[in-house]
Amino acid sequence: MARQTRGGTREGGPSPGSRASARRGPKWTSAALGVDIGGTKIALAVVGKEGTVLDAERIPTGAGRPALEVVDDIVACVHSRWAGRLPISRPVGVGVAGQVDPEGIVVLGPHLDWHDVPLRARLARALGRPVSVLNDVQAATFGEWRFGAGRGVDDLVCLFLGTGVGGGIVAGGELRHGATGTAGEFGHLTVVRDGRKCHCPNSGCLDAYVGGWAIAERAREAVSRDPLRGERLVAMAGNAAAITSETVVSAYRAGDGLARSLVEETMSYLVEGLVSIVNGINPRTVVLGGGVVHGFASLLPSIGRQVRARALPAAAAGLRIVPASLGADSGVIGAAAFAQEALRG
Amino acid sequence: MARQTRGGTREGGPSPGSRASARRGPKWTSAALGVDIGGTKIALAVVGKEGTVLDAERIPTGAGRPALEVVDDIVACVHSRWAGRLPISRPVGVGVAGQVDPEGIVVLGPHLDWHDVPLRARLARALGRPVSVLNDVQAATFGEWRFGAGRGVDDLVCLFLGTGVGGGIVAGGELRHGATGTAGEFGHLTVVRDGRKCHCPNSGCLDAYVGGWAIAERAREAVSRDPLRGERLVAMAGNAAAITSETVVSAYRAGDGLARSLVEETMSYLVEGLVSIVNGINPRTVVLGGGVVHGFASLLPSIGRQVRARALPAAAAGLRIVPASLGADSGVIGAAAFAQEALRG
Repeated sequence: MARQTRGGTREGGPSPGSRASARRGPKWTSAALGVDIGGTKIALAVVGKEGTVLDAERIPTGAGRPALEVVDDIVACVHSRWAGRLPISRPVGVGVAGQVDPEGIVVLGPHLDWHDVPLRARLARALGRPVSVLNDVQAATFGEWRFGAGRGVDDLVCLFLGTGVGGGIVAGGELRHGATGTAGEFGHLTVVRDGRKCHCPNSGCLDAYVGGWAIAERAREAVSRDPLRGERLVAMAGNAAAITSETVVSAYRAGDGLARSLVEETMSYLVEGLVSIVNGINPRTVVLGGGVVHGFASLLPSIGRQVRARALPAAAAGLRIVPASLGADSGVIGAAAFAQEALRG
Repeated sequence: MARQTRGGTREGGPSPGSRASARRGPKWTSAALGVDIGGTKIALAVVGKEGTVLDAERIPTGAGRPALEVVDDIVACVHSRWAGRLPISRPVGVGVAGQVDPEGIVVLGPHLDWHDVPLRARLARALGRPVSVLNDVQAATFGEWRFGAGRGVDDLVCLFLGTGVGGGIVAGGELRHGATGTAGEFGHLTVVRDGRKCHCPNSGCLDAYVGGWAIAERAREAVSRDPLRGERLVAMAGNAAAITSETVVSAYRAGDGLARSLVEETMSYLVEGLVSIVNGINPRTVVLGGGVVHGFASLLPSIGRQVRARALPAAAAGLRIVPASLGADSGVIGAAAFAQEALRG
């Protein structure tokens, strides 16, 4: 299941001043609209041919809200904000937190509580524009591939570590969806047999160790095992139950010993997952993104060295492990770029 | 690194009587020659358009023999045996136990002790025929995809469990090679963090638990821990050091308790690896082949149930896990079929 995994720190989007002025100006004759539907908010952006965000907007999703209402919100936003400048022929690309079939039906969107929502058809009818729909993490992968850290690489894997862990695969110069649209769910690679219970039916998944929720859970357990060593984490969070992965990042940066060992352990699980990805899929480049990666950016070179030392030498030959470069915009940029190409917009 | 993983029990190939007669007869105007170069033997077969083996031969490889001599042997075999019936325009497809680059250079063949051997160019010049070269397990995957258990499936993973564990990926209707030609090395997915030492630089790999060598190693360790319980295994093998994965299979079939627990443990590691493959790659079908799978064929339905129960429901929707159907011929059939298509033969 797709997660909202790109907890980037950039809020993106122009300031209110530029927003007002965005309604007027020359027409965007070669742009596309990118829409990123997550569990709590919808990000929308007009994206130029070269992947630049020309204008952006954010509206709340409202958990459990019916899909039809979300479609209405998107339509209202597009009409009020961009109708005058974005010609009706320009395509719309959507990335949505869920499992998407080839017809653009959201088979399952667990965080949205959507089941079998014919999103592409509904949105196309309501907007009167060509629409493509992708899983949100696959859209972000497409963005990093076309305009970000994976630009020009035919064999690419993206791994996004946020609240949950998700990923995407580009192989042979094409985004891969898999048989049922879920390819790239690297959060659910087993790294520890009979390990920590995951949110999924399995246990020992990568997500259950390096997802933001899991880092927080592991930190709270560590504090409960050794309250003295955990004093700083508790103080920073207010109380033990309030410790999040962000608390761990802050404490780590402040030199806290427990946070340091939690982070090192997290990185070693990540290395295991990356070794599996490199050996199994043999990408040229691995792009690491999401809030957790952002928090530990300084550890990336060490992660790369460990992966190269443990992967099959032939599989790791020439391998690059690089940070994502589009931040929280990867989803809207990728969705728009995918629409441009898929719909020949 | 590619291994010779398809320890199938079918020796294949026609009887001596049919061999003699194969030199005469109508010309094979639409066939291709498939060659499977392993660490100990070379299998050659004339393969018809529909994937049928029309004639076959086997010659020893000779460990550590220079590549030029192996090329000479192949050329001599083709000339003496098939020159009259296989027109010079018919292509030759080779699968080789090693890492192969897009130019058909064997970058590394650990079991052959080959380094940077320009196999495609040499063989094409010596034979005067169009030649394609693939990794052997990828060739076997191609065979199962075109003419075996994965026929007609656009998103397919093959996993071969023999002495070692190897695999191949078909995604979006194409065989995937990866960035450096090693895609599908599923034997080196981590299933146990800090687990058993593998032959590769990592530890805890799937190969280190379910490869034939690892099953044998685990069995010998179990016998040494509990000699009484291991009596039957020792008796069947002659002595403890002689226990192989085949001994475990035989003892399991004979109802031995220790063999049974070894097999059940092996299957549980295999399930972990399969869950990672299904979640990460999202194939429609997983084809399981090789000698180890053949030995435990009756357990396949149970393996399928466990994988479906533990994988992400969306990734496992409609998933099929099936036994390979071409046995030891998958390599020659796949190599020949790949040559037919790649070279438009």
